[in-house]
Amino acid sequence: MNYLMVLYILSFILKAEGVFLLLPALTGILYRESGVVCYLAVAAVCFVTGTLLGIRKPVSRSLYTREGFVTVAFSWIVMSIFGAVPFVLTGDIPSYVDALFETISGFTTTGSSILSNVEGLSRAGLFWRSFTHWVGGMGVFVFIMAILPLMGMGGSTMNLMKAESTGASVSRLVPHVKDTAKILYGIYIAVTVVEIILLCLFGMPLFDALTTSFGTVGTGGFGIKNDSMAGYSPAIQNIVTVFMILSGVNYSLYFCLLSKKVKEAFRLEEVRWYFLVIFVSAGVIIWNTRGLYATLGETVRHSFFQVGSIITTTGYATTDFDLWPSLSKTILVVLMYIGACAGSTGGGIKVSRLVILVKTIWKELSLIIHPREVRKIRINRHVVEHETLRSINVFLVIYFLLMLVSTLLVSVDGLDFTTNYTAVISAVNNIGPGLELVGPTQNFSVFSAFSKFVLMFDMLAGRLELFPMMVLLLPATWKKR
Amino acid sequence: MNYLMVLYILSFILKAEGVFLLLPALTGILYRESGVVCYLAVAAVCFVTGTLLGIRKPVSRSLYTREGFVTVAFSWIVMSIFGAVPFVLTGDIPSYVDALFETISGFTTTGSSILSNVEGLSRAGLFWRSFTHWVGGMGVFVFIMAILPLMGMGGSTMNLMKAESTGASVSRLVPHVKDTAKILYGIYIAVTVVEIILLCLFGMPLFDALTTSFGTVGTGGFGIKNDSMAGYSPAIQNIVTVFMILSGVNYSLYFCLLSKKVKEAFRLEEVRWYFLVIFVSAGVIIWNTRGLYATLGETVRHSFFQVGSIITTTGYATTDFDLWPSLSKTILVVLMYIGACAGSTGGGIKVSRLVILVKTIWKELSLIIHPREVRKIRINRHVVEHETLRSINVFLVIYFLLMLVSTLLVSVDGLDFTTNYTAVISAVNNIGPGLELVGPTQNFSVFSAFSKFVLMFDMLAGRLELFPMMVLLLPATWKKR
Repeated sequence: MNYLMVLYILSFILKAEGVFLLLPALTGILYRESGVVCYLAVAAVCFVTGTLLGIRKPVSRSLYTREGFVTVAFSWIVMSIFGAVPFVLTGDIPSYVDALFETISGFTTTGSSILSNVEGLSRAGLFWRSFTHWVGGMGVFVFIMAILPLMGMGGSTMNLMKAESTGASVSRLVPHVKDTAKILYGIYIAVTVVEIILLCLFGMPLFDALTTSFGTVGTGGFGIKNDSMAGYSPAIQNIVTVFMILSGVNYSLYFCLLSKKVKEAFRLEEVRWYFLVIFVSAGVIIWNTRGLYATLGETVRHSFFQVGSIITTTGYATTDFDLWPSLSKTILVVLMYIGACAGSTGGGIKVSRLVILVKTIWKELSLIIHPREVRKIRINRHVVEHETLRSINVFLVIYFLLMLVSTLLVSVDGLDFTTNYTAVISAVNNIGPGLELVGPTQNFSVFSAFSKFVLMFDMLAGRLELFPMMVLLLPATWKKR
Repeated sequence: MNYLMVLYILSFILKAEGVFLLLPALTGILYRESGVVCYLAVAAVCFVTGTLLGIRKPVSRSLYTREGFVTVAFSWIVMSIFGAVPFVLTGDIPSYVDALFETISGFTTTGSSILSNVEGLSRAGLFWRSFTHWVGGMGVFVFIMAILPLMGMGGSTMNLMKAESTGASVSRLVPHVKDTAKILYGIYIAVTVVEIILLCLFGMPLFDALTTSFGTVGTGGFGIKNDSMAGYSPAIQNIVTVFMILSGVNYSLYFCLLSKKVKEAFRLEEVRWYFLVIFVSAGVIIWNTRGLYATLGETVRHSFFQVGSIITTTGYATTDFDLWPSLSKTILVVLMYIGACAGSTGGGIKVSRLVILVKTIWKELSLIIHPREVRKIRINRHVVEHETLRSINVFLVIYFLLMLVSTLLVSVDGLDFTTNYTAVISAVNNIGPGLELVGPTQNFSVFSAFSKFVLMFDMLAGRLELFPMMVLLLPATWKKR
């Protein structure tokens, strides 16, 4: 293990976090809040620690896959450990475990909260909470690559971005990693700015528009109101719906559109399936919840909002869907598994993985019938390589085992099965709310500290697509060769 | 598709069922019940239909994999369609849909019932219900192979037995299929007889001993009392525990012991993991349910009984485990997934598949750390072939998709999530009870006819290890080439 290199990169992360923390500090200054000092102090600590860690330059700049995974996992953990401190210092979240849960939930764009009264938080706290979504959504390494030159790290940076997995397609956009990162961040910022402007135009206060947009574009879901998005006007809710769904789209679509490859954009299979699933799910829910709301328009609005929120793993709510009929709730649970497109900011299994899996089943069943037929699985007209298929299968197995073990561990608290099960699905898929005791109007404070740690691990594992966190658990990672 | 050959084999199945139906008829005669006529009539219909179907001898005796799957799927469906009739004729179960559900639940060794008052059934009905477990447990084709010569079908018979999947290891026991079938049935009968004798020795009436043993050795779980096994003495409950667990063991173990390969028997990895899971689960449940029962002995007895019943997918109960604490209930849900050993009469994913999957994860994670290492996955010191790995992955994907889709369909009824979810797990894994409204003291009559059909499909799919039933759904199966 190239420990020096790992530390060197952690130093970048901490310095970046120091910069990020200046934004909530600024918010605090604008609102004349006393917590400003806390944010500035933690920013300073991040900067000093970062500088100290970076003093010894690594002899070798090479970073193998193993170190890439370990570095990314540690970066997210360290970022959360430091990011949680201001919540405790300002008194917004007195318990450090709770603050850590909230911060990990923020960075991983989960949006599960332990707070029962969000509105009691300071403005700086609310801003920081939502801003973690925005940082986590695109990934902190993409940010660093886009901004800093990271002198001469070449191939290593690719390993880091891959491990952070903003999506399988990152590598394909343009030949240079740095340029890819810049394009991705450009699109990301553009979408965010457009949403902020639109929300403001439709009467949302600037502060609300900022935090809501961070949560939407990062597919996070922390709200700044106790009723999430229920209190805002229908127009605002609809804008959020559209931007949630747009944020769950594979970013290659936008890249195709930017490069004027409109035809290619419309051919992206994953995106087509994604929209199909959204429309079918919303359609069934509209039918299933008819009569629950005053008008058809309202039913349509709530259905699309909730479907968009859950499939993109955002987690905002405009209505308490725990009160919906069983079929609608089950559809939401299924959407929790599906998740957004690969190469988006959303979580879940990802539509492309599922499309490939369904094609695999189809192929294998056809093989029973026509044993001599040679069929290749294709997506977007390209043959899916054997390696990809294998990694999807391994992903799926780890994914289900992780959920199984987590549900077991969480159930030690003795809460009901639906609560435990949906809390774990929600954490692993970075969604936010679950059902029953962790439904959209409830929060995660019902769990013990132990269960919270299990869920924190799950959130990180889910955001980093399992492997980086699993590698940490492997004894072989820590053995010298 | 060699339709003539499919019909020819169906004729054997129907004739065999005709013979089976004579047993409940005999029971009815002994207890002087009026339903005897119904059983004799249906037996006659089976025989006549079977003979008619067998009149036109097939030109070609070859049976490809596709036809093997279709034949097996149809055999089980036809067997259930005819087997359900006596329940309706005798008035034991007036609704044909319910009778079909009960029969499929019987043959697939699920043990889920739609009856709220089992004790109201006729003796003949109770006997037939339990006997379907015994027939389904080892598989009807194994029975036919063991008894009948099936003139000159050679390789085709292997395809049938594989499709009926009494386990992956069937093929390995001895070179000839027929001999394998005989050995399997020999062991099966021996275990059943020993259990009947033991139960009688400990004071169980012969009728109860017979039906209980059918349900145990076939890992079915239909009880003849409303409280399942709760009313019997602790000694009897313990005997059933032991025989349930023994029936979930890979039959190769018994074959090894019979051939005096004791060393090899103890080396069977799957069996070792199976016992480890049982002891760990029971241990945790004993700790978790301490205080619920009067004595530690009682806690131990109930824990082992329920663990043995669920992991082997039998489904008997000595206590209402829906009242257990959350952790214990979640352990049972996990055991539902795990299931028994391959090559046993139990259902579920199977221990060996899971062992291989865990080894795959281990290998893939190690590959991240030591990319150049060449590792092979081994079980019982033999390398697991690539084909096996692929088929396990495909199995798993179909398995989860089937459960997802089924849960969605069943939730149209509007029951709670835990009920729907555990009902589907219970059906696909051929267990019997679930939690909440389908808990051990409840029954499946709460579902609509539509949901019952979904669950019937799931039970058949689960028993036949998915592929035969999935192939039926594939348009390509029915196309001419």
